[in-house]
Amino acid sequence: MSPLREAKPKVVVCRSLGPAMPLLAQQADIDLVVWSEDRSCPRPWLLENIPGAAGVIVLLGDKVDEEFVRAAGPGLKVVSTMSVGYEHIDLPLMARHNIRVGYTPDVLTEAVADITIMLALMAGRNDNNVYSTVKNGDWARPNFAWSPFKLCGPQLSTTLSSPTRTAGFLGFGRIAQATLARLVGFGVTHALYTGNPASSNSSVRDEELKTRHRLQALERVDVDRLARESDILFVLTPGGAGTYHLVDEAFLRKMKPLSLLVNTSRGSVVDSDALAKALKENWIWGAGLDVVEGEPLITEDHPLVKEPRCVIVPHIGSATFETRLDMATRAVENLFAGLFGRDMPAELRV
Amino acid sequence: MSPLREAKPKVVVCRSLGPAMPLLAQQADIDLVVWSEDRSCPRPWLLENIPGAAGVIVLLGDKVDEEFVRAAGPGLKVVSTMSVGYEHIDLPLMARHNIRVGYTPDVLTEAVADITIMLALMAGRNDNNVYSTVKNGDWARPNFAWSPFKLCGPQLSTTLSSPTRTAGFLGFGRIAQATLARLVGFGVTHALYTGNPASSNSSVRDEELKTRHRLQALERVDVDRLARESDILFVLTPGGAGTYHLVDEAFLRKMKPLSLLVNTSRGSVVDSDALAKALKENWIWGAGLDVVEGEPLITEDHPLVKEPRCVIVPHIGSATFETRLDMATRAVENLFAGLFGRDMPAELRV
Repeated sequence: MSPLREAKPKVVVCRSLGPAMPLLAQQADIDLVVWSEDRSCPRPWLLENIPGAAGVIVLLGDKVDEEFVRAAGPGLKVVSTMSVGYEHIDLPLMARHNIRVGYTPDVLTEAVADITIMLALMAGRNDNNVYSTVKNGDWARPNFAWSPFKLCGPQLSTTLSSPTRTAGFLGFGRIAQATLARLVGFGVTHALYTGNPASSNSSVRDEELKTRHRLQALERVDVDRLARESDILFVLTPGGAGTYHLVDEAFLRKMKPLSLLVNTSRGSVVDSDALAKALKENWIWGAGLDVVEGEPLITEDHPLVKEPRCVIVPHIGSATFETRLDMATRAVENLFAGLFGRDMPAELRV
Repeated sequence: MSPLREAKPKVVVCRSLGPAMPLLAQQADIDLVVWSEDRSCPRPWLLENIPGAAGVIVLLGDKVDEEFVRAAGPGLKVVSTMSVGYEHIDLPLMARHNIRVGYTPDVLTEAVADITIMLALMAGRNDNNVYSTVKNGDWARPNFAWSPFKLCGPQLSTTLSSPTRTAGFLGFGRIAQATLARLVGFGVTHALYTGNPASSNSSVRDEELKTRHRLQALERVDVDRLARESDILFVLTPGGAGTYHLVDEAFLRKMKPLSLLVNTSRGSVVDSDALAKALKENWIWGAGLDVVEGEPLITEDHPLVKEPRCVIVPHIGSATFETRLDMATRAVENLFAGLFGRDMPAELRV
């Protein structure tokens, strides 16, 4: 083997990165192997191709485990996933083998905050009903008559005669704060959140946010107050055992009858059966969900899909060209940092 | 007739105003006649009941014409419509008979600005496709596999690698300005508009808005630049002959391939056939419409209803409890002002 060939690390990419591929293909100093179909690469293809790889770009569906590491061999330096989640990667195993791991947080904050606002608006405006009204041609039928309170819902923005609005955040990280920044333009006046115990740092931050957004209040509260006082409740907390079914029947029973619930984080935080009951029995007005417990196995007879005041989209929070390209770009940057021993833009450590 | 009976003006209400009815029913000093079903009152009922009326509350469907005025008789002082539009009222006729006319502008600004943002987000996020994906159970099927650029669309908000966004406004009145205030939270950096010739007043206002919203630019432009430079084009101009088909094939051909068009004002401003062609041939990315030319006669085989990247809702811009209650309240206030010779909150003059 010539020294030149030795100098070219092998990189395996488990899925075409679409418009981000030129970033890899233009690199003359790597030996590139790509599964170029727009579907997950089959496991046998992966195991056949990773031997000798120094770096691998993976997605959520690609399990990075003992088998993966053994197949790759001792030269594997970096696994870079184009995802914020890393449930598919055995991190302690990576640490034992000195394999660096990159991921793509942060870059999707703005896209998810966008869809959070979209779902809050859609949930308030009865989008399931109005959608079928147009799609089925009901708009054109004589029995579709305008009426002063037909197809109405609670208004997200404030008005002269309804001058306050309280946004509640279950979890108050980057996406929640980006959502709050958007809500200010709708006249939201109060923000409540639950989260990690307030440190002196977060009081300073809260004071700064309250001033910047000209809020009447920005307050860390307990879950009970959050449920009782929110006009719109945003679920923006990580998944996992610690947040499992935080929004359950007891929580939903405390909410206001015209309130909205929006979940754009993890389906497991909200008890789907309790939410369906809350909607059916009018404990709350409506819900907008980008994530549902048990997804993607959500069929047309799922109790929430059948609920007329529940709007569901199929986990597309980060699905914009800009954000997905940023995620792919970040995955490539992480890969190169791992290959050539530089600092990663976003590195996961155990 | 006793003086007491003479002192009680007769008021006819052509449609139950729902939660706003107590405002009328609690008034002891009027003689109230209400069509209380939640549908338009039949014309014969109206003509039978308005003789001797001093005030009438009407809606868009009730034609206020010669026949109406003749049936009411010379005691008619005020017609109050629960609507912003007044196409159903013959204003010169009202002037000739010294009948004052009230309407309900302004109060729906915030609700319409909300739905304008909702439609911009939905148009970018392929809501027709994602909706049917969930409703049809496709999310649960094995062939629904996540893929890096599946179901993507252009992002409304700015990102680190895509740091500018230009919002264009065809018409720059109250609703457009309320929409712009909301867009600031999404990171929109540039705003362009067409409208009445810039006066020194509007330059001062524009400077103030630019500073308040920290925009890089806020500029009145010609229609050509508006079409070419907008990432999102908001149609927010009044209807009528002067704006008929302002958005036509020539306009749409100038727009950017990833741009969005949102119409929440009047259907007649946008040429539906041209828009359907623009979407089919990818001149623009998507459209969100609360109004469509020829509504409500929009059937399921309408070219825009069939377009997958066109989101349509059935003219529900002001359909929130808060706003409709404000409109009904304003209609009642206008009525009383007209009955008792006071200033109206919102009076229409020829």
